[in-house]
Amino acid sequence: MIVSALATSVGINLGLTVLLCALYSVLRKQRGNLEVYAPRLVADGRARQPSQFNIENLLPSTGWVRRAWDPSEDDLLGASGLDGVVFMRIFIFSLRVFSVAAVVGIFILLPVNYLGDQLRDIDFSDIPNKSLDLFTISNVKDGSNRLWFHFSAAYLITVIVCYLLYSEYKYLSSKRIAHFIASKPLPHHFAILVRGIPLRDGSSISDTVESFFMEYHPSTYLCHTVVHQTSKLRRLITDSENLYRRLTDLKSSPRTPENHRNGGILGLFAKKKDLLGSYEKKLEDLEENVRVEQSDISVTKEEIPAAFVCFKSRYGAATALKIQQSDNPIEWVTEEAPEPNDVYWPFFSTSFMQRWISKLVVFVASIFLIIIFLLVAAFVQGLTYLEQLETWLPFLKDILKITVVSQIITGYLPSLILHVLSSYVPPIMKLFSTMQGYIATSQIEKSACDKMLWFVIWSIFFANVLTGSATSLLQIILDPKEIPVRLAVVVPAQASFFIAYVVTSWTSLSSELTRTMALICNLIGKHCSCKSDEDDEFQIPSISYHSEIPRILLFGLLGLTYFILAPLILPFILVFFCIGYIIYRNQLFNVYSPKYDTGGRFWPIVHNTTIFSLILMHLVAIGIFGLKKVPLASSLILPLPVLTLLFNEYCRKRFLPIFEAYSAETLIKKDRADQNDPTMGEFFDKLVTAYRDPIWMPIRHSPFSNEHNSPLLHSS
Amino acid sequence: MIVSALATSVGINLGLTVLLCALYSVLRKQRGNLEVYAPRLVADGRARQPSQFNIENLLPSTGWVRRAWDPSEDDLLGASGLDGVVFMRIFIFSLRVFSVAAVVGIFILLPVNYLGDQLRDIDFSDIPNKSLDLFTISNVKDGSNRLWFHFSAAYLITVIVCYLLYSEYKYLSSKRIAHFIASKPLPHHFAILVRGIPLRDGSSISDTVESFFMEYHPSTYLCHTVVHQTSKLRRLITDSENLYRRLTDLKSSPRTPENHRNGGILGLFAKKKDLLGSYEKKLEDLEENVRVEQSDISVTKEEIPAAFVCFKSRYGAATALKIQQSDNPIEWVTEEAPEPNDVYWPFFSTSFMQRWISKLVVFVASIFLIIIFLLVAAFVQGLTYLEQLETWLPFLKDILKITVVSQIITGYLPSLILHVLSSYVPPIMKLFSTMQGYIATSQIEKSACDKMLWFVIWSIFFANVLTGSATSLLQIILDPKEIPVRLAVVVPAQASFFIAYVVTSWTSLSSELTRTMALICNLIGKHCSCKSDEDDEFQIPSISYHSEIPRILLFGLLGLTYFILAPLILPFILVFFCIGYIIYRNQLFNVYSPKYDTGGRFWPIVHNTTIFSLILMHLVAIGIFGLKKVPLASSLILPLPVLTLLFNEYCRKRFLPIFEAYSAETLIKKDRADQNDPTMGEFFDKLVTAYRDPIWMPIRHSPFSNEHNSPLLHSS
Repeated sequence: MIVSALATSVGINLGLTVLLCALYSVLRKQRGNLEVYAPRLVADGRARQPSQFNIENLLPSTGWVRRAWDPSEDDLLGASGLDGVVFMRIFIFSLRVFSVAAVVGIFILLPVNYLGDQLRDIDFSDIPNKSLDLFTISNVKDGSNRLWFHFSAAYLITVIVCYLLYSEYKYLSSKRIAHFIASKPLPHHFAILVRGIPLRDGSSISDTVESFFMEYHPSTYLCHTVVHQTSKLRRLITDSENLYRRLTDLKSSPRTPENHRNGGILGLFAKKKDLLGSYEKKLEDLEENVRVEQSDISVTKEEIPAAFVCFKSRYGAATALKIQQSDNPIEWVTEEAPEPNDVYWPFFSTSFMQRWISKLVVFVASIFLIIIFLLVAAFVQGLTYLEQLETWLPFLKDILKITVVSQIITGYLPSLILHVLSSYVPPIMKLFSTMQGYIATSQIEKSACDKMLWFVIWSIFFANVLTGSATSLLQIILDPKEIPVRLAVVVPAQASFFIAYVVTSWTSLSSELTRTMALICNLIGKHCSCKSDEDDEFQIPSISYHSEIPRILLFGLLGLTYFILAPLILPFILVFFCIGYIIYRNQLFNVYSPKYDTGGRFWPIVHNTTIFSLILMHLVAIGIFGLKKVPLASSLILPLPVLTLLFNEYCRKRFLPIFEAYSAETLIKKDRADQNDPTMGEFFDKLVTAYRDPIWMPIRHSPFSNEHNSPLLHSS
Repeated sequence: MIVSALATSVGINLGLTVLLCALYSVLRKQRGNLEVYAPRLVADGRARQPSQFNIENLLPSTGWVRRAWDPSEDDLLGASGLDGVVFMRIFIFSLRVFSVAAVVGIFILLPVNYLGDQLRDIDFSDIPNKSLDLFTISNVKDGSNRLWFHFSAAYLITVIVCYLLYSEYKYLSSKRIAHFIASKPLPHHFAILVRGIPLRDGSSISDTVESFFMEYHPSTYLCHTVVHQTSKLRRLITDSENLYRRLTDLKSSPRTPENHRNGGILGLFAKKKDLLGSYEKKLEDLEENVRVEQSDISVTKEEIPAAFVCFKSRYGAATALKIQQSDNPIEWVTEEAPEPNDVYWPFFSTSFMQRWISKLVVFVASIFLIIIFLLVAAFVQGLTYLEQLETWLPFLKDILKITVVSQIITGYLPSLILHVLSSYVPPIMKLFSTMQGYIATSQIEKSACDKMLWFVIWSIFFANVLTGSATSLLQIILDPKEIPVRLAVVVPAQASFFIAYVVTSWTSLSSELTRTMALICNLIGKHCSCKSDEDDEFQIPSISYHSEIPRILLFGLLGLTYFILAPLILPFILVFFCIGYIIYRNQLFNVYSPKYDTGGRFWPIVHNTTIFSLILMHLVAIGIFGLKKVPLASSLILPLPVLTLLFNEYCRKRFLPIFEAYSAETLIKKDRADQNDPTMGEFFDKLVTAYRDPIWMPIRHSPFSNEHNSPLLHSS
């Protein structure tokens, strides 16, 4: 790639970004789009509906940027919970790191690279036609003493990143504890989930739980809720809901008779009446079935050996959680209870062995998915070479000769296919995590986030790095001592590609702002279906951390890896994080509402990924100094990864436990503060029914369902 | 090696073993040797001193075998604790495994191997001159269907070993819980060790601990003992003890004036009197210093931020242990308290960072030790090739021409050097573990046991396997996909060597019985020094599990690895375990007394090593079936290591937690049982001073030291 091509790309993408932002500012001001662009405000009733037509509403403005910038971190904490804060801290952390990195890179490394004469092209006049490679380390002469600048930069950036990681971890730890101390009493602080409850002859699981905890935790035990097998009931309810929807659609259609005007013969009306009658009969039957099923649950046959057990104090719950309860470690297994609305009810898989095997299966499946995606990506990238395609599919020869077709196929199709394919990956990863038997949405998303990280690192970073050269992936893995040298060969070769990738990502980031899919759905929904406004379909979306966090961390990885190789990438990454900071703040305040609160548990993932990026940078540095014939620098880099890993180990000991559990000190203080709170009695009353599967709620579709009471619940 | 050579070796070693056993039975009956062969009985006063000279005492007998065989496991539990039981279970487990393995190996695999004609030597007449290779898998024809016997045998033995491992783990788990339930109240069940106590201005550590636990554990906290810096005091006491010993030696020498008869002039006596006087003066000064130092401790300046905290119940202690106490995870770090007499006082290293760095240093040092030993071993084994020695040291040429010298150098010297060197390794490993900052002898020995295992596996198994062929060690490690094939080449090549090694080990096992070093020391002590019988030097030795367990597990590793390759090794291993079973039972009942009680925590090490051996066997099998051109069998073995690792993972979940902590169920039951025990008050009184460093005890050497009281102790 030459400089002018890069400049063009930057120009186009910057233009698109500005255009999208302007479009957003206009679209947002339209009456009908508030549900798309500010569903939170709509839900809170804070949205100002533009009262009348106004020419200002058609002009782009920048007010939204100020409104996204202004609020403090405490406002963000209030709006999106600690997870939102952690999410935004990724941007702040990255901005800090890459500000320093960009200054060092642009003002020190870039001139050094450019003034090197390895590529023998010293001519200051014609910069636009220079290859970007002139700005990379490749241009520094082999064995040159100037490489010590790069060496020092590697040490400097490692120290800075570690320092920032440390202070960020420290800051978020204290935030997490403060957030906990400031929280009102929440059910999941008082509850634990118990699994592997042993079946005793002649007594129900509920009785077994009760007698066990009355025996061993008499002073702190409060109540429990046994989990039930609900697949049949869930199926029935889904059926009845579908039927109800069809019924209301059918009922509401006479209100808009113009749709059927052409076929408006009497026969159709009669047929419709029949349909209505039969649907109502079916619905009634289904709901009767649901009620029978719901009341049938008082029979113990469908109890799952798992229960939510509530305690009278947070410390009591923590004690029961931490100490192995039974002599048999796979019975009475305790787990943290998630928030009641965070519980993922459908997949309450039962036995210890079952969960354990599914974990294994999912592990293997995830690896297979990554490998398959790598193969598909390699095949798709093969499309860019037309000759290859022609030999594979000779009948296409004539069509491919048309310039437009060939340009589309080589230039656009591969990236389209990859984008479409990779958009399917986050849901698949989430499905995998679901199968692993996690019992909370937050746990599922956290696990999916881990999987996505692996996916992103392998299928975007390594796949591009490795298919760029002819080196096979397997060869690198199976020959560990060659890793640094091979990385040093293949990673710099892809510098231009990744610079272009970063620049393109600005546009995709801005399209997050315009929410194209949601906008289209909204438009279709308004104009084609006859959904009424009071319909309960309107839901505030929640941000899917498991797909966003890995995407953002990838840019951190790129920035750190290419810091000493191609510092030209740094300003573009800096711009990416600036845009991202504003856009995501805006979205968190206006669009997304938190679905759960993990209390910032996504941060350790960010920390570990950054450490991984550092180590990767060191490995590449070791290789590149070796290739550049400065073996001394190559050996002197060696302590760096070791020290980084030690630093990571220290952080694991120092901060990670804070993200795993609260300390006795905090729990007891919080419990004592509650003792004088008069509302606690009410809270404990509510706690008894907090962990009740919403499936047991009476259904409300047919008019006669209200007369039935809610089913018996096994709680004491 | 040919069969007759093996037979000779078996004959010699069997003869030596029988001779040593006979020698033991005679020596044991001698009056003076009771302290060497039955120190436990002597200490208990149960030893029957032979009253008069008796000809029977000079005749070997087998009564000791019956006496070692007879006692039940409960007797063993009483005599040597659960660790002794676990130690003997290694033998029982191995005997079971290798009984089955030997039957399969000798009656199925051996005939199959011998009847194969790969080595083209079918001639049944001249067995003594046959190479041992005829009995190994090497003799089976490439691609022969007979190899499926070996394949089935691999599956069979894996299933049997896993089943036995499972039942053994289960048995010992229940033993461990039963042992705990049957135990009387013990201080370490009620105490925890707290480290990283934060320093607060103006208050001592003792006060900080008291206020912290009174604040957060008011209902269960009982008392605490702060640990003190004692290096200076320890040095003073060692000095004074040395001086006291020299003084008593000097004083007692006039009683045996015949030693000095030749130089018995007046001058010497006068000189001695002077010496006596000056020594006594010095001792007095030293003891005064000790007393000053001991009383000085009431000043807080030498407190270490670590304390033993005792609770009123076992469950209270477990709760405080399991829950992170402070918001800062590296403050108030809780650890299990060891038994009071198990505490290793001298090396109470202080800070979190310090311990952490020393762990790292020790890790690196251990690896270096193994590598250095490997290099030394390779050099020493080079001695067996005389030509090489001659080129290295040309001046030895003439000497080496003498047959005796060359035979000694090639045949005896290498193994002697290796034996001497490797006898130094267990103490070094123990020293390493000590440096890691463990605070209990049991923890140190457990960690040393792990290190020794690595050492034994690498420096005995792999070193011999790999130096046997020309393959370099590093090559194998750095080329993981080649591991099975390379192992399949090098492991079978060393079959004869390891068969000989097992046979030789019988003798070294029997020399454990005769305790040569202890016997010699005892003899020297009796005849040369003037030690009086009531001297407190007489100590019951304790078995050093960290050197014995790895040694024994090595034979399990050998047996499993060579099971399908060279089944001829199995009967010899079986004999090894039979001899070992009797000898170690005898030693545990008569010689060694337990120094600590870990409650069977050595078993997980045994379990993991056996799993490692199985995986190694599978890897070799994969390689050998590939080499033997039965690729189908090679691929069908693949599930075996995976399933074995899964089994191991299951055991880790199912049993390991039991060996790490007791369950709430057990702890609470035990606490409740104690509530009605009238002796508990007395026990709690004793608990207050249980964790007191013995260094604070008043010293007893000079007659006037009794008038001083014990120093102030910081316990409440």
